[in-house]
Amino acid sequence: MHDNALIYAQQHKAQFLSELKEWLAVPSISTLPEHTPDMYKAAAWVARQMEGIGLENVALKPTGGHPIVYGDWLHALNAPTILIYGHYDVQPVDPLDEWQTPPFEPSERQGYLYGRGTSDDKGQIFIHLKAVESYLKTNGNLPVNVKFLIEGEEEIGSKHLADFIRQHKAMLRADIALVSDTHIQGPDQPSITYGLRGLAYLEVELTGPAHDLHSGSFGGAVANPLEVLCRMIASLKDNLGHITIPGFYGRVRTLSPQERAELARIPYGETELMQETGVPRPFGEAGFSINERIGARPTLEVHGIQGGFVGKGSKTVIPARASAKISMRLVPDQNFQDITRLFTQHIQLIAPDTVHVKVTDLTGGDGIVIDPHLPALQAAARAYEKAFGQSPIFTLTGGSIPVVADFKKLLSIDTVLMGFGLSDDNLHAPNERYLLQNFYRGIETSINYLVEVRGQ
Amino acid sequence: MHDNALIYAQQHKAQFLSELKEWLAVPSISTLPEHTPDMYKAAAWVARQMEGIGLENVALKPTGGHPIVYGDWLHALNAPTILIYGHYDVQPVDPLDEWQTPPFEPSERQGYLYGRGTSDDKGQIFIHLKAVESYLKTNGNLPVNVKFLIEGEEEIGSKHLADFIRQHKAMLRADIALVSDTHIQGPDQPSITYGLRGLAYLEVELTGPAHDLHSGSFGGAVANPLEVLCRMIASLKDNLGHITIPGFYGRVRTLSPQERAELARIPYGETELMQETGVPRPFGEAGFSINERIGARPTLEVHGIQGGFVGKGSKTVIPARASAKISMRLVPDQNFQDITRLFTQHIQLIAPDTVHVKVTDLTGGDGIVIDPHLPALQAAARAYEKAFGQSPIFTLTGGSIPVVADFKKLLSIDTVLMGFGLSDDNLHAPNERYLLQNFYRGIETSINYLVEVRGQ
Repeated sequence: MHDNALIYAQQHKAQFLSELKEWLAVPSISTLPEHTPDMYKAAAWVARQMEGIGLENVALKPTGGHPIVYGDWLHALNAPTILIYGHYDVQPVDPLDEWQTPPFEPSERQGYLYGRGTSDDKGQIFIHLKAVESYLKTNGNLPVNVKFLIEGEEEIGSKHLADFIRQHKAMLRADIALVSDTHIQGPDQPSITYGLRGLAYLEVELTGPAHDLHSGSFGGAVANPLEVLCRMIASLKDNLGHITIPGFYGRVRTLSPQERAELARIPYGETELMQETGVPRPFGEAGFSINERIGARPTLEVHGIQGGFVGKGSKTVIPARASAKISMRLVPDQNFQDITRLFTQHIQLIAPDTVHVKVTDLTGGDGIVIDPHLPALQAAARAYEKAFGQSPIFTLTGGSIPVVADFKKLLSIDTVLMGFGLSDDNLHAPNERYLLQNFYRGIETSINYLVEVRGQ
Repeated sequence: MHDNALIYAQQHKAQFLSELKEWLAVPSISTLPEHTPDMYKAAAWVARQMEGIGLENVALKPTGGHPIVYGDWLHALNAPTILIYGHYDVQPVDPLDEWQTPPFEPSERQGYLYGRGTSDDKGQIFIHLKAVESYLKTNGNLPVNVKFLIEGEEEIGSKHLADFIRQHKAMLRADIALVSDTHIQGPDQPSITYGLRGLAYLEVELTGPAHDLHSGSFGGAVANPLEVLCRMIASLKDNLGHITIPGFYGRVRTLSPQERAELARIPYGETELMQETGVPRPFGEAGFSINERIGARPTLEVHGIQGGFVGKGSKTVIPARASAKISMRLVPDQNFQDITRLFTQHIQLIAPDTVHVKVTDLTGGDGIVIDPHLPALQAAARAYEKAFGQSPIFTLTGGSIPVVADFKKLLSIDTVLMGFGLSDDNLHAPNERYLLQNFYRGIETSINYLVEVRGQ
């Protein structure tokens, strides 16, 4: 049975890829209102896929925002139920001129498929659809029950997902969740993420004068909101990279020696980081390794600053306002709502009275840690090993997938984070890509997993 | 003779205004390449004006950039020659949505004419053209010789003006220069600027990673160029508002008790500043009054920051690069080239090795002080008093008009800075405006000046 599915997957590679390209061509950028029609188009496309491969109860479920796509196959008796989660929405594509090929015209170069959503996350969730198809088309059934939940708001903080889960607990009941939205350690080195950082994302806006001023007439006599913003941002970290917001580290879990040792096994350090990113030198919190900084420590990043004149030439303006988008990645046991509150209070406290300050909470979610010894994670390790010929490393990852915390809290289930991307896939950046070899090995891994997870 | 000119000016107010509106409708934004055709249009328009009012030798003179418009009348025997300077170029208009009426459709509201260039500088240089017209049309001659020099690159640092002056010294030879590109102290309180600040304007660009990174995958392990930029900008001033660039204050002239006393006479303080700008509280260098901060002290301002994601929503990106436009207003005897060099060296010194830094010199010019007791300035004082019924205050002004230093250096002449704008004219900002009453009183003042300056 299992072999037939693997053979089917081998024989249908070209079809799988051409289908994926069709989905990727839909510019489902969830954060931009002008793409709302594309959200429905991308959701409907994957719903039709689900029906085509033999899933049942397929539906676009309305939410307060973009629809959620659901489909299941529940005819495996005395077998566990796997809730497979992914997202069909993608990040914006600016700066557009840095893309070598258009973001929504997927194109292959040197073994990679380039395009927005290739790795994050259409290309990864598609793996499991194709594994299920391979099994159902060759055997007429699956070793386990599956429920697919594919949302359209992951890139904007999964705003309506928790409510949806709360309202559809029976429909979503499962034994374990499966999410492929992370990366592995190398093309041939699989890994399983057992911890994810949480996120608190805010916007700070400062207003000084009622309108832009001429710096010749007023420079020196009024506070410049852009400069005040710079001073405030600069003060959020000390010279050792520690975040200065009072209480910020209060609930940060200390790493055990075992955890530090496991993280030290990851074949990724300063050299690899510099090669991959092109930075002249790494930077980060003193006293922690690269992998600890990314996976196990909370961080604060400024994602964008807006203010003043940024055109060509030399306008001499004191801008009336300046704003910054700032997020913090959180680790267990930090609570994103607490951190949002601490950040907001601190910003209001440090803002001088030469400006008005406004802090807006944009999105957030808690981090999570999963026990690597869980049978479902061990089954995933075996599935990987059979497809890749290498046993996976267990890692902590810097990214945030708030749904994992929600699954735990609302459905009382753990999540297997089975990634197939690579860390240099240019996620959220120009030229996002996806190693095609691992798309196919991913389908093989997923077919293996359907068997392995039953055997637990 | 003189009275006839004043009567002519009175009778032709409507015509003068409608002509000015025609000129203002040309969007001659010198810094934006797409407006190059408009630069020629605005230059040609004023050249035709000059011919129409009876000036001679009118010509558009080519430069390495936008053309300079020249015209003269040189038939006054044994009389001084006045070189009247102005500029036909204007600032950009963004943010466009903050304009109550379109910037290039001049419109009147409550005694003001609104539109880009109304006060800076088309509306002000037009005063002198209309004064000359009033005199020539009624008397067939002028009490003095005049040469008009109207350039198109003032807002981009008068890049080609100094070379032009150097190459046309004979053509431009004069006894005194007259510039109307400053503001007076109130609608009824004229003032004469006897000092202007210089300017050094640069752009700082930082590059970290080779491309934008996902803050989940890399946050905490690489330096964020936007944050580094904030830290660098924050460090450029201490908590008392002093600029920290080594050597910056080295050549700053100390104010004499007399100068401080004269500046203290200006009816403008914290209350007026707050009313005019809407700032919650003034800010500036400790130990100096508002007027000293604006007129007599060097300053540093950030005019714009660009970097990262500034759209709607919450993109979690670490931007590959970040840049800031920064200028310094300089006072005598600071040299803009020295300051440009000190700034560049300092930025390169404080940039950490986690980023690459590039500093670009955009524009600059020296400041100037003119002796208030010069006969030509005293003549200006009498001309103002007759038109406004109030004797002018002598002030130091924060703005920069590099041509004044060039006139001194290259033509060995001083400049009378005879302003007619107001400090709340929204220069370089949305809703630039111009008090029409003072447009007409300005023409009267200029007619008076043509007589007064001869009598010296």
